[in-house]
Amino acid sequence: MNVESFFSENIKAALKNDPPGAWMPDLPDGCIRLSSGYPDPALVPAEELKEAVARLLDEEQDLPLHYLGSPRIPRLKQQIQKRLAERGICVLEEQLLITSGACQGIDLIARVLLDDKAVVAVESPTYMEALEIFQNYTKRIISIPIDEQGLQTYRLKEMLDERKRTGQTLPRFLYTIPTFQNPTGTTMTNERREHLLELSIEYDFLILEDDAYGELSFDENPVPIKSIDKCGRVLQVGSLSKVVAPGMRIGWIAGESEFIKGFEWFKKDLDHPFAQSSMAVYLENTDFEKRLDLLKDTYRSKCTALIHSMEQFLPESVSWYVPDGGYFVWVRIPGVDTSQLLSQALAEGVSYVPGKYFFLDQNDGTEFLRLSFSYANEKEMIEGIRSLGQLIASSLS
Amino acid sequence: MNVESFFSENIKAALKNDPPGAWMPDLPDGCIRLSSGYPDPALVPAEELKEAVARLLDEEQDLPLHYLGSPRIPRLKQQIQKRLAERGICVLEEQLLITSGACQGIDLIARVLLDDKAVVAVESPTYMEALEIFQNYTKRIISIPIDEQGLQTYRLKEMLDERKRTGQTLPRFLYTIPTFQNPTGTTMTNERREHLLELSIEYDFLILEDDAYGELSFDENPVPIKSIDKCGRVLQVGSLSKVVAPGMRIGWIAGESEFIKGFEWFKKDLDHPFAQSSMAVYLENTDFEKRLDLLKDTYRSKCTALIHSMEQFLPESVSWYVPDGGYFVWVRIPGVDTSQLLSQALAEGVSYVPGKYFFLDQNDGTEFLRLSFSYANEKEMIEGIRSLGQLIASSLS
Repeated sequence: MNVESFFSENIKAALKNDPPGAWMPDLPDGCIRLSSGYPDPALVPAEELKEAVARLLDEEQDLPLHYLGSPRIPRLKQQIQKRLAERGICVLEEQLLITSGACQGIDLIARVLLDDKAVVAVESPTYMEALEIFQNYTKRIISIPIDEQGLQTYRLKEMLDERKRTGQTLPRFLYTIPTFQNPTGTTMTNERREHLLELSIEYDFLILEDDAYGELSFDENPVPIKSIDKCGRVLQVGSLSKVVAPGMRIGWIAGESEFIKGFEWFKKDLDHPFAQSSMAVYLENTDFEKRLDLLKDTYRSKCTALIHSMEQFLPESVSWYVPDGGYFVWVRIPGVDTSQLLSQALAEGVSYVPGKYFFLDQNDGTEFLRLSFSYANEKEMIEGIRSLGQLIASSLS
Repeated sequence: MNVESFFSENIKAALKNDPPGAWMPDLPDGCIRLSSGYPDPALVPAEELKEAVARLLDEEQDLPLHYLGSPRIPRLKQQIQKRLAERGICVLEEQLLITSGACQGIDLIARVLLDDKAVVAVESPTYMEALEIFQNYTKRIISIPIDEQGLQTYRLKEMLDERKRTGQTLPRFLYTIPTFQNPTGTTMTNERREHLLELSIEYDFLILEDDAYGELSFDENPVPIKSIDKCGRVLQVGSLSKVVAPGMRIGWIAGESEFIKGFEWFKKDLDHPFAQSSMAVYLENTDFEKRLDLLKDTYRSKCTALIHSMEQFLPESVSWYVPDGGYFVWVRIPGVDTSQLLSQALAEGVSYVPGKYFFLDQNDGTEFLRLSFSYANEKEMIEGIRSLGQLIASSLS
């Protein structure tokens, strides 16, 4: 039996890409994980979630364990509407779809909006999982560079003008992580957010705003693009993974109802009543602003510790952006190929993500790497940066 | 902004289908639900699941709440391998993919194997959600009738010969629910199971075996087609929804590893660590054979009660298949359009699913309806059938 003969044509093409995460080696035991975009274990509310489940099942018995029936399912939606409203985003019930994490949201959007003729615009660098998702649908991906102020919207305009002039297809949507971007940690300025919205109207594209880190500011949360979008051009993808816990798989898409209807059509894992109801109970028993303050303080302190150790231990030629929130620091090491250095780093007991994997063209970004301050504790981070510093110094000498 | 202009072409086509479940009216309060394919509430192990979550989080703290990390994720896979082995299906770790319910499994398979040129063969009638899923990918669906012994494999052979003779595309796969079929409750005989496998080799198609009800026999569980498949042609989709609880969203696909790799590629909701780990703890603390005996006894008794009340209250002209397990009874009412009767039934406080919604062509099956004995209790069922009987008698007079 010829297995491949059963795959549809576009699937065969997609399967020729590298499998997702193929680059990621196994981490040795005891490795200091500066690569993981995981929340701090101490911040994961395991005890509170356990209580939430107990309360849920005591109150509702079997209801949340059926396909439908728990009153908490619509209530979760309302809680998310409330959280969005607090950030200036007003969505009606039919403009919100609960998804199993932000990734599923991105995939649903790609599924509905892309085909092999569609063009997608992404930031450079960008979240690698999103790149992999888009590449399952189209090969026509264009990338626009990021700097310390986020997406370079003026370069975007130049590229759009050029495409228009030469009769090339314009993008159907642009994917951006404007706030505490993964991997660069940068934040798109307000001026550029407004400019991006203007461009979306002028060149008729949608904006897929990935807001997974949006509430993880060390200070004030930046204004979401969706909150200043008057034309319904922004599809916002959000997630409770970073502010509560990833294991519950709760995210959402917020957008115009005709889009939401389309996305819902293709969402075939149905709802997740148990996980969603549990999360609803957890949220109704949590002072969320207080929780966000705790996250803010913890991550601010950890980021500071990481940056200090980088100043202390990394060679002078190494540079980085200092983030205002989120999980990540983007580091440049001129003269070093960070993907080749990785195995030595692991042998020294510290991991990171080589920068090139965040680029459409993996010949780019070879001098960069992404560090995360979210997961490891401060002592580990200092230790890890010390090792990394020695390693980089050796490589440069 | 022209929303529709952003949808990809094949999506536009799919969205012209009726939305899933569009036919389903809201059930009035207090309605006796003979329409719901839900487990009996008394059989849903809410207390045990609550304990499983508590045990999980006490032992592992934050581990099952991250993207990865709980040792129970691979353990759930092993538990499912063990359950499959007890039914004669031996799968290696790489031949099994955990999905968010059987529906997601069916959608993943359709996604990878179908395009708008592919032909799919289905039973007639069949599970309506599966029909809706396939129609998102291709319009080329052929259906083969069912009788009391399940799929008419000789009719299938005739159709395949005809297609071959006239140069028409052969199906890429055939979707079957051979055991306690939804909606007919029939079970494909062993002879036809073997015949189907022979046909799959001769005409080079795959078999998508939906085994969601496979362990819900009133007596001995029929032999899964996958357990007698020597050539790797069967992709089996299974689920814990009917034997534990739907709300946890745990299912799987079992098949050759190259297929599994392809399906995994497109599964973008990632794993569900919390739900899956919780289920793993529940399973490791449950005598599953004993649980299956309880399900068997309960559903056997309920089915008997339903059939007795049908014999007692339904007019003589009404006929049905008597199932050997599962959730459903398939009823024929000559001279009555059951979809038109539904609103009156709801007004009388009893629901059912009109038969035509299980057919590819909804001009078919208008005289049929599906009753479920799984959800309502025996008293309610008797009451509901009494009302239904009166209603049918009025319609026929």
